[in-house]
Amino acid sequence: MKVAFQGEPGAYSEQALFEYFGEVESVPCESFEAMFDAVVSGRCDAALAPIENSLAGSIHQNYDLLLRHSLHIAGEYFLRVRHCLIANEGVKKEDVKKAISHQQAIGQCLGYFRKNGIKSETVYDTAGSVKMLKESGARDTAAVASKRAAQLYGMKILEEGIEDNPENYTRFLAIQREPVAPQGAAKTSIVFTLKNVPGSLFKAMSVFALRDIDLTKIESRPLAGKPWEYLFYIDFIGSLEDEASRRALDHLGEYALMLRVLGSYARFSV
Amino acid sequence: MKVAFQGEPGAYSEQALFEYFGEVESVPCESFEAMFDAVVSGRCDAALAPIENSLAGSIHQNYDLLLRHSLHIAGEYFLRVRHCLIANEGVKKEDVKKAISHQQAIGQCLGYFRKNGIKSETVYDTAGSVKMLKESGARDTAAVASKRAAQLYGMKILEEGIEDNPENYTRFLAIQREPVAPQGAAKTSIVFTLKNVPGSLFKAMSVFALRDIDLTKIESRPLAGKPWEYLFYIDFIGSLEDEASRRALDHLGEYALMLRVLGSYARFSV
Repeated sequence: MKVAFQGEPGAYSEQALFEYFGEVESVPCESFEAMFDAVVSGRCDAALAPIENSLAGSIHQNYDLLLRHSLHIAGEYFLRVRHCLIANEGVKKEDVKKAISHQQAIGQCLGYFRKNGIKSETVYDTAGSVKMLKESGARDTAAVASKRAAQLYGMKILEEGIEDNPENYTRFLAIQREPVAPQGAAKTSIVFTLKNVPGSLFKAMSVFALRDIDLTKIESRPLAGKPWEYLFYIDFIGSLEDEASRRALDHLGEYALMLRVLGSYARFSV
Repeated sequence: MKVAFQGEPGAYSEQALFEYFGEVESVPCESFEAMFDAVVSGRCDAALAPIENSLAGSIHQNYDLLLRHSLHIAGEYFLRVRHCLIANEGVKKEDVKKAISHQQAIGQCLGYFRKNGIKSETVYDTAGSVKMLKESGARDTAAVASKRAAQLYGMKILEEGIEDNPENYTRFLAIQREPVAPQGAAKTSIVFTLKNVPGSLFKAMSVFALRDIDLTKIESRPLAGKPWEYLFYIDFIGSLEDEASRRALDHLGEYALMLRVLGSYARFSV
């Protein structure tokens, strides 16, 4: 099985891919578009796309790509983002004077650096910082990246979980060409637009409230250039196999200008 | 007046700052935390914080910082993110074989690069790529950054608006120590949590629907480590100066476990 991800080998997305799919072939892609194309064209069987991060928010680009293509969500996975302090063999933590990594990773470890008297420098990529460090052989520098990146380049992990905020996780969606019929605890993701009249979202939500269907996500997204129009994202507990879910969506279809079911899939559980 | 922003001189945030505040002193900060601290400590009079991007989503980190500090939203600004192709003096567009910039900017111009036979390379920062290009003096390379970065380093703009998706804008919030009392068209931003019972969000939204108050944003955010608890962000049309808004918030206070008004402020209009 071949699974596409966005980024370089050793990226957090690739780590999530192996944790979710197990022993598969991972296919790095330069952009989210290229990742979707790999599935549409049949070159890959699936993709693992980040959809939201607990600190950085929803990744609208991947919602846009889900709407543009006829693909289906087949599963979800939550990756706890644990930044590792990675060095060349034989280097000790007290030798480290400088850390290099992608700007976002550096920004998430500033408290740790301050506490340990470590300076920081941003480079283009987390996994790339490990590669650069290996090539330079520097003994006063550490890279900040995933455990997987350390393993890939045969480098040493000096410390794991150095991020300042432990509540840092990314939710990924498994994307495939065919829908799945989940057994057991399931979730369904939908996207819709409504007529621009007061209370329209309230009415739309009533289709779930009236049937005691729990929502696990709701988000409005303004449509650029159309100041009063919105896309809405909702995830709810249930699958298209359930009568209540089907009726709620049927009911929502009466109000919605556009309604698209992105997929029903097994809920992630630890 | 001194205004803090996150990033390097020439960053998109600094461009938004000058467009919103006019002639003020801009103060670069290495992180969002440092930007908030600059206002809390009184070193700066205000900060301009990005809160959501049309492609990348809400920036939860800045919501967290708003909740952690007793600061107030005093205004909003929408910046259309227009990437510029920037080169050394005398270089023509047809000379450009390679583009350098931050990963996100590169990712947003891949179609343009393909069409023009330009290779790309990621560096740590958009404004930093302009500085690097100036120092190297390279004549086959262009940087991708804001107009402001080109002006700051005295470089030439070969083309403006090279991003593949024109619907790329970032919403910024002006943050100050004292609340403002907006005149005319206003918006109010709130954050709240609810009891975890079915239909609780539906009830919460009724306080706005019953008073014909329009929402311009709604978003749920899972609280990490608490799988069934959420923070909700709502922006609505109206200010604390209006009777209807005050009554709606009073009513919401009956259901909400936590309710915080982040500020009432003038709505952005083009």
